[in-house]
Amino acid sequence: MKIAILPGDGIGPEIVAEAVKVLKALALPLEMETAPVGGAAYEAAGHPLPEATLKLAQQADAVLFGAVGDWKYDTLPRPLRPEQAILGLRKALGLFANFRPAICYPQLTHASSLKPELVAGLDILIIRELTGDIYFGQPRGRRSAPDGPFAGAEEAFDTMRYSRPEIERIARVAFEAARQRRRKVTSVDKANVLETFQFWKDVVTEVHRDYPDVELEHMYVDNAAMQLVKAPKKFDVVVTGNMFGDILSDEAAMLTGSIGMLPSASLNERGQGLYEPSHGSAPDIAGKGVANPLATILSAAMMLRFSLRQPEAAARIEAAVQKVLADGLRTADIAGEGCTVVGTAAMGDAVVRAL
Amino acid sequence: MKIAILPGDGIGPEIVAEAVKVLKALALPLEMETAPVGGAAYEAAGHPLPEATLKLAQQADAVLFGAVGDWKYDTLPRPLRPEQAILGLRKALGLFANFRPAICYPQLTHASSLKPELVAGLDILIIRELTGDIYFGQPRGRRSAPDGPFAGAEEAFDTMRYSRPEIERIARVAFEAARQRRRKVTSVDKANVLETFQFWKDVVTEVHRDYPDVELEHMYVDNAAMQLVKAPKKFDVVVTGNMFGDILSDEAAMLTGSIGMLPSASLNERGQGLYEPSHGSAPDIAGKGVANPLATILSAAMMLRFSLRQPEAAARIEAAVQKVLADGLRTADIAGEGCTVVGTAAMGDAVVRAL
Ligand SMILES: CC(C)[C@H](C(=O)O)[C@@H](O)C(=O)O
Ligand SMILES: CC(C)[C@H](C(=O)O)[C@@H](O)C(=O)O
Repeated sequence: MKIAILPGDGIGPEIVAEAVKVLKALALPLEMETAPVGGAAYEAAGHPLPEATLKLAQQADAVLFGAVGDWKYDTLPRPLRPEQAILGLRKALGLFANFRPAICYPQLTHASSLKPELVAGLDILIIRELTGDIYFGQPRGRRSAPDGPFAGAEEAFDTMRYSRPEIERIARVAFEAARQRRRKVTSVDKANVLETFQFWKDVVTEVHRDYPDVELEHMYVDNAAMQLVKAPKKFDVVVTGNMFGDILSDEAAMLTGSIGMLPSASLNERGQGLYEPSHGSAPDIAGKGVANPLATILSAAMMLRFSLRQPEAAARIEAAVQKVLADGLRTADIAGEGCTVVGTAAMGDAVVRAL
Repeated sequence: MKIAILPGDGIGPEIVAEAVKVLKALALPLEMETAPVGGAAYEAAGHPLPEATLKLAQQADAVLFGAVGDWKYDTLPRPLRPEQAILGLRKALGLFANFRPAICYPQLTHASSLKPELVAGLDILIIRELTGDIYFGQPRGRRSAPDGPFAGAEEAFDTMRYSRPEIERIARVAFEAARQRRRKVTSVDKANVLETFQFWKDVVTEVHRDYPDVELEHMYVDNAAMQLVKAPKKFDVVVTGNMFGDILSDEAAMLTGSIGMLPSASLNERGQGLYEPSHGSAPDIAGKGVANPLATILSAAMMLRFSLRQPEAAARIEAAVQKVLADGLRTADIAGEGCTVVGTAAMGDAVVRAL
């Protein structure tokens, strides 16, 4: 089993090092190879996603990804900016299904902005389509406005689009996932305004015929943004497009108050996957040894379960993380009264001990 | 001064009736004329925005709008659905600047999902561009995918677009508004992915040169969705496009916990405006006399200030609403311990008495 390790920028290298430590402690036959990505790759090789890194990712069974991005790359031309690496990997590997759990750990309820009773026991799974929509739709660019009230003015434009097979496959992923959970899917759209999302709603409704045991609810994206704040526990699986999913999955993650705990998986049709923490590269705390490695460690667990078919090993990691939390260990981002605050490496060591 | 009164569907007629009651009590020379809109207009005249209603709105100095929509119209063909009325009015009147305050009233802090310390004193102004973006961009529709990995498959598509003059005018509105407040503008974009919003960011930055006394910050939309949950009080004025504004303004409104209190204004370049509560038509409680009329009453106050240049009358209404809250009167949606729960009409009467 081959894993591509792409640490990236900011806190990426620190947190990925801890996840690698945990993987090694499992003593499984895992072959790991590291390559630069993002700003680090731009500095090393002049491109955020060098040919060699892409090749390694394509040949691996799974990619363990840290994070990319730093203020210092903000002035680069867009094709050279760090985030192009993650967009490029998603597209090249066909990683269409993004799983973003928003879970509120019992010991961390206090960290949420929301009142404890609203988030205690929260367990939502946001499934975001990741290779279509306005993220990749062509044509796009700048031009002179061809029509409308500002015809002739300078304008920029993008194309939102979804085809039937793209919607069908992500809908199936959502219904299948719901069968393993509370059997409810909320499909988020903006069918009252967008052609793309009227079609989305129609196709999801059709696919639902094959899953009569799962409840399907449709919700407008603006309402979903509200209901997540008002009553997040009413959701089970949320499925939506790339753009709305970007916004709602971050909103949901922040509701838990412990985004430093949340892993994510992005899968293609062959089960190959990219695994990364839901949080970003946090350049402000990079190199200080204080970042929370648990989201990355839990991403490694997701990798073992989804791409490497090692459910026992995955469960061991998850149980170890639970134990460390129960023992009162916390990194600074999730610190609470009566807990012991530890750094990145000490947290990784504690998980290894708890395995 | 001529006002078009468009009550609409669901609780629309009930809450608009209370706002009209308050306006009449001011004894100003206001000419009010009522017309059907939304589902009510579809039933009365076969179209959600009949010619006569549109004409009335165009000839008035301001429109006082209730709400539109009901489940029972969900199966109508899209051009006949209630929400087409509001989209049609925005476009026909050129209402490009949507003001959506998210205010947490001191007496209602408990109603928020968020911990009181995070929302006490909250006062954000979201300024949403309302006549451009993917809401109105052409071309749009269904077709066979012309290219990409699913070429030939059935697909739906929409066009996101913004021209320079559209971005310039909404940016000016935001900077001007910030000058009346805490002098900070957060421009929300997705410049790392979308051509449209890289252009948006560029143009907002250029316009900012004329407002050196106002602080400008740029934020990605996914991050904005998070920061609203994490630390909403860090925002002053938020300016963004039509689609992102739809999502973020609803999220921000719900954070306050009292969406039943939040008015909105949509203005064109001539100062004509449409005023409506931020909440929807709530068909589930329609006709029961329990809906909160305060958002509509406060929308009438905004109308007096922005379109009718009657700032004293506006301030009288706002003070009366404050007094009613201080007296402990509440509709069911904002009820709290030790308060007196009243119905829609009783709340309107109380505001009139407090004027
Ligand atoms: C970095 C950016 C391109 C990316 C996205 O918008 O998808 C990020 O926000 C994410 O959610 O992974
Ligand atoms: C009803 C709908 C078309 C509308 C919108 O999306 O603009 C509504 O959500 C709003 O925010 O006023």
